[in-house]
Amino acid sequence: MTELDVAGLQRRLADFAAKRDWEQYHTPKNLAAALSVEASELVEIFQWLTPDQSARVMDDPESAHRVTDEVADVLAYLLQFCEVLGIDALAALAAKIDRNERRFPPK
Amino acid sequence: MTELDVAGLQRRLADFAAKRDWEQYHTPKNLAAALSVEASELVEIFQWLTPDQSARVMDDPESAHRVTDEVADVLAYLLQFCEVLGIDALAALAAKIDRNERRFPPK
Amino acid sequence: MTELDVAGLQRRLADFAAKRDWEQYHTPKNLAAALSVEASELVEIFQWLTPDQSARVMDDPESAHRVTDEVADVLAYLLQFCEVLGIDALAALAAKIDRNERRFPPK
Amino acid sequence: MTELDVAGLQRRLADFAAKRDWEQYHTPKNLAAALSVEASELVEIFQWLTPDQSARVMDDPESAHRVTDEVADVLAYLLQFCEVLGIDALAALAAKIDRNERRFPPK
Repeated sequence: MTELDVAGLQRRLADFAAKRDWEQYHTPKNLAAALSVEASELVEIFQWLTPDQSARVMDDPESAHRVTDEVADVLAYLLQFCEVLGIDALAALAAKIDRNERRFPPK
Repeated sequence: MTELDVAGLQRRLADFAAKRDWEQYHTPKNLAAALSVEASELVEIFQWLTPDQSARVMDDPESAHRVTDEVADVLAYLLQFCEVLGIDALAALAAKIDRNERRFPPK
Repeated sequence: MTELDVAGLQRRLADFAAKRDWEQYHTPKNLAAALSVEASELVEIFQWLTPDQSARVMDDPESAHRVTDEVADVLAYLLQFCEVLGIDALAALAAKIDRNERRFPPK
Repeated sequence: MTELDVAGLQRRLADFAAKRDWEQYHTPKNLAAALSVEASELVEIFQWLTPDQSARVMDDPESAHRVTDEVADVLAYLLQFCEVLGIDALAALAAKIDRNERRFPPK
């Protein structure tokens, strides 16, 4: 991971949408739908691959680019969703890992 | 956003999976599917809501908890997916915003 | 396949929604979202299975019931979606198979 | 609905896949993923539309064609999924409607 921070990216995304007058479309309902659509585009890349083939997907530059691009789209909509609802995604994940560590004790 | 960092959360998730012997299930194909399933669970919360109702989803503590929990799940699988494929999600998003700023000039 | 027909099931679904005053929720947008949520619930059953395990999913009565139930949910929302938009799903599929037979000549 | 029947379409799809040697890809796990990907492509058409706009989606010939085409894709994968697992989708739906009529008494 780079030193880029989530808060900075979230501000860039909010600014990007505001300058294009796209905020009207960014209801939580629409952003959740867009997030799931992008997640499915990631699934599409893998849908006919065997588990082994899926593990080698970054070996081909073209599919590596496609995968990376879909990751960016998923994260973009996740952060925009969190922005409009005031959710701190990293804190939410930290709390969830805490809960899961109690819920699923290691073997 | 809190000071929690993405790299630290990603290490906790990798450690969590390793201790439970879950790495065998974490092919990129399976993690992409799990990510899309969690994104759909977020959509499910909103599926019958009007746009206005969707904007007020955090007013009710129970639905706020549910939304936050699904955000954590989506982010968890996205980071695990990136971990197994060596993708830097924040750098991918920064590069995508750069491209989109050129592709969609502001009004 | 049984002798049950699609048109009859579609009428039962429309009647079911009308009697419960649920038609107000059944916009095409909401029904498409609900369809995708149910499709993801089907994916969830398979997400950690190997290809071989996935082929034996009907051997266990409990998972067979779960799979069958999700198939019913997907078909229910697909038919309701088609009902509100006046789409003939079977004719659409027949036309698509015709096109695909020209587009992908057999080996 | 036309007089086309589901069993006949299912046979055409199975024959289509067999002639192209695609059966190897058609594990239940892969077909469930493909089904959810197609359902998301349907969601994508509606993701930024208001409820009212979504109700008029068939007024424009181009979007009407796109919607109909995605319906065909969803149904195609649903029927192929049912074919490989020996599930009777129409009987599953009829049984589900029966259960729901008991579970949700009309107002």
